[in-house]
Amino acid sequence: MKKRIAIDMDEVMAEPVSRFEEWYYRDFGERISYPRVASKLFPDTISEERRKIVQQYLHTKGFFADLPIIEGSQEVVKELMDNGFEIFIATAAMQFRASFEDKYDWLAQHFPFIPWQNIVFCGNKSIIHADYLIDDSPYQLRAFSGTGLLFDAHHNQRENGFMRVHNWQEVRAYFLG
Amino acid sequence: MKKRIAIDMDEVMAEPVSRFEEWYYRDFGERISYPRVASKLFPDTISEERRKIVQQYLHTKGFFADLPIIEGSQEVVKELMDNGFEIFIATAAMQFRASFEDKYDWLAQHFPFIPWQNIVFCGNKSIIHADYLIDDSPYQLRAFSGTGLLFDAHHNQRENGFMRVHNWQEVRAYFLG
Repeated sequence: MKKRIAIDMDEVMAEPVSRFEEWYYRDFGERISYPRVASKLFPDTISEERRKIVQQYLHTKGFFADLPIIEGSQEVVKELMDNGFEIFIATAAMQFRASFEDKYDWLAQHFPFIPWQNIVFCGNKSIIHADYLIDDSPYQLRAFSGTGLLFDAHHNQRENGFMRVHNWQEVRAYFLG
Repeated sequence: MKKRIAIDMDEVMAEPVSRFEEWYYRDFGERISYPRVASKLFPDTISEERRKIVQQYLHTKGFFADLPIIEGSQEVVKELMDNGFEIFIATAAMQFRASFEDKYDWLAQHFPFIPWQNIVFCGNKSIIHADYLIDDSPYQLRAFSGTGLLFDAHHNQRENGFMRVHNWQEVRAYFLG
C-alpha cells in the first residue's frame, strides 16, 4: 500500500505574503515586512480605513494568482511521487470563494504532474484521509487524524506539538532519508 | 465521538440532468429524457457536431447554478445534524473548473446551515475521512474507505455492491430508524 502525503498550499508550496506586501505597497505606498504581516497584532497597528481594505485582499480575485513557488517544493514533490508516495494537495480554499480558480490555475501551471483527482479544496482538514499532512497551521494539524509535519513559518514559531520541517530539503530527508 | 457522513452533491442533493435537458432543448430544439442523458450510449446517438457542444456543458459557467434541489435533502440533512451526525459535503468538483463558484453559491443558498469548514471539492474520494459516504457513483464508493450508501440513479441500476437508498426518506430511515 502506497503511503499518502497530503500537502497544504499557502506558505508550504505557494508564498502569499509577498502578494500581500505588494498590494499593501500599491495601496498605501509603504513597504511592510513578512514578520509584521504574519503577526497577529498587525491588524491593530493600522488605521481602521487601511484595515478594511487589507481584510478584503484574501477575498479578491488575483490575490492567489501567480504566487511565487516555495523553493524546492516542485522538485521534492516530484521526487516523492517517483519514489512511490501518493501525493494529494489539501488547501483550505473554502474560506475564500475568490481563490478557487486562482489556486486551481496555479497548480495546473506549476504542478502539472499532480492529477486533478488528487487536489482537494476543503475547510477543516479532519476530513483528509492520508498518512501524513504537511501544513504550516497547527490548527489544521491538530484536526488531522494522521501524522502531522509542521512547515516552518513566522506565525507558528511558538508551536512545539509537531515535528517541524524548515524547508523542502528537510521534507525530502524525512521521507527519503 | 460523532459519526461523520459525507454527502455527494450531483444526483444526490442537486439535480443536474434537468439543466442538461434544458440546454439541449435550447441548442437543438429537441426534448430528451433523463434515461437517455444518463445512458453511456448517449454520446454515440448524436452527431459529432452536437457531441462537441454537449461535451462543453459541464465545463460552462452556469451549468451547476440554480439546479433543482433533490426532494427531502434539505430536511433530512438538517435532521441528521440535529441528531448529532457530523455532515460534510464532498463533491468531485475538481473535474470541472467552471463549477467551483456555482457549486459554492448553490450550497450557500440552499444549505446555509452547513458551514464552509465542512465543504470539500475533491477528485478521488479515497481522500475523504468519514464513517459514511452517500454517493450515486459506484466508482467513488469503491474508492472510499468507510461505509458506502449508493444513492439510486438511472446510471447505477446494475450496481449491486452497496446498500442502495432510493431517496432521502430511506436515508433518514437508515440513520435515524
